Amino acid sequence: MPFTTRAQVRFADVDPAGIVFYPRYFEMLNGAVEDWFEQELGMDFKMMHLENHIGVPTVRLETDFLSPSRLGDRLDITITPERLGRTSCQVTIVFAGDGVARLKAHVVLVCMDLRTQRPIEWPAPLRAAIARGVEEDGTFEAGATPA
Amino acid sequence: MPFTTRAQVRFADVDPAGIVFYPRYFEMLNGAVEDWFEQELGMDFKMMHLENHIGVPTVRLETDFLSPSRLGDRLDITITPERLGRTSCQVTIVFAGDGVARLKAHVVLVCMDLRTQRPIEWPAPLRAAIARGVEEDGTFEAGATPA
Amino acid sequence: MPFTTRAQVRFADVDPAGIVFYPRYFEMLNGAVEDWFEQELGMDFKMMHLENHIGVPTVRLETDFLSPSRLGDRLDITITPERLGRTSCQVTIVFAGDGVARLKAHVVLVCMDLRTQRPIEWPAPLRAAIARGVEEDGTFEAGATPA
Amino acid sequence: MPFTTRAQVRFADVDPAGIVFYPRYFEMLNGAVEDWFEQELGMDFKMMHLENHIGVPTVRLETDFLSPSRLGDRLDITITPERLGRTSCQVTIVFAGDGVARLKAHVVLVCMDLRTQRPIEWPAPLRAAIARGVEEDGTFEAGATPA
Repeated sequence: MPFTTRAQVRFADVDPAGIVFYPRYFEMLNGAVEDWFEQELGMDFKMMHLENHIGVPTVRLETDFLSPSRLGDRLDITITPERLGRTSCQVTIVFAGDGVARLKAHVVLVCMDLRTQRPIEWPAPLRAAIARGVEEDGTFEAGATPA
Repeated sequence: MPFTTRAQVRFADVDPAGIVFYPRYFEMLNGAVEDWFEQELGMDFKMMHLENHIGVPTVRLETDFLSPSRLGDRLDITITPERLGRTSCQVTIVFAGDGVARLKAHVVLVCMDLRTQRPIEWPAPLRAAIARGVEEDGTFEAGATPA
Repeated sequence: MPFTTRAQVRFADVDPAGIVFYPRYFEMLNGAVEDWFEQELGMDFKMMHLENHIGVPTVRLETDFLSPSRLGDRLDITITPERLGRTSCQVTIVFAGDGVARLKAHVVLVCMDLRTQRPIEWPAPLRAAIARGVEEDGTFEAGATPA
Repeated sequence: MPFTTRAQVRFADVDPAGIVFYPRYFEMLNGAVEDWFEQELGMDFKMMHLENHIGVPTVRLETDFLSPSRLGDRLDITITPERLGRTSCQVTIVFAGDGVARLKAHVVLVCMDLRTQRPIEWPAPLRAAIARGVEEDGTFEAGATPA
């Protein structure tokens, strides 16, 4: 089942042309991933980074900006895990406002040991939680790809 | 009566030393001012900027950073209007987390016509709404200072 | 011929894991596009936005993050125009530090009239300047695609 | 002698009202402090943070925003150390563009051990380098205040 959270377009996010400056979308996107980990996967970023020394850097990003967002817009951000690899996962993230898609992104996250700065296998609880989301959408992969 | 809103310390806000990078506090502070205008003063930033062509730039800022904030902290942000001038107002803004003050700021905002880029008198409804907040705290000024 | 400019990884760009927070790469990338317009294409963003009422929003972005960047790194950013359409163009942008590629992005920019917020044909001088860059790399398109 | 560095107002820095969004000034200010440490005080932020485990968080900030800055403006940023304490120092920072002051800030930095997160005495080389700047401006303090 997709996970949904929300963001509000703030003054800080809007450029001189009156629309969201796109790097700010990625701050919202990262905030949505934080919400997903905390509310759906059962591990908040604080615990994950500071106690478990695990990070989830983005290694690939593909984004189509479909229609502009403006000051004050409330955006629904939906995260759907698509593929689960041994050390990575791919998610699709859609931003929508007033029912209109604003952007669609495919993001590959890697599970990284912050001390060695190298990819590691997903910890079992995280792996299971992500797998549940993938299975529900029917595209579970047995850890082969994306890596 | 002070106005209170909340912010969450996101991954995007935290520096390599593990604490909030202070310019990010001011983005949260500006977001809190947006909430104050929308929820308490009855004029959201979108309407104000795009329809009424009014902005409220910050012309003075005095901030003490009292204790650090970390990833995941939920912060209460309290805005208390202190003085109301003809074209400006001064507010005190306090950030607190777990009951501990994180920063205290005194901010002077000016009401500006975005087309002429010059200060203008507060529109009557905004003026009345800010004045109510000031009066409740007992320091109403008859428009003399800060300007 | 590719256009090259530089950026420095600032404290503001680095996350709690000690590496560049990826949305900040896109601020650097946008800054590099500003430099390209000003230094190579002959139209700076100020003139373009404020006098000519033209913007160049990003409509598509594909990015591989190849290796992390850290505090203090000096990055070379290379922009190579790949395809020139009637109202858009595609560029490849590579960030490198110490000779190692950090990220590679394919970006589609659209020429937009800021007043109507609709795509317009590239102004002749901009079109000619971008075309020169594309031709040198041998992949000029006669305005057919990407649009 | 004051230390001077430069910054350019980027698209990312400008708000919907066409002027620099003030939290972005503080990112430029922090970048200028980085330049000061690297070019004048002889210790770059990378070495200081990662090898020496020292940070210099801002504990107090007083800023007057004197005139707006716009897209493309080149700003001169001047840093003058004013007082040197045992574990802190106060600097005055002025931003100017086309000879017109844009903002003036008084900033108190504290020397912090990143492992204990507590203030420590300035390392001797840093202390000596800051003291030289203060003495030249004639307001050296024998470590009494600000702390």
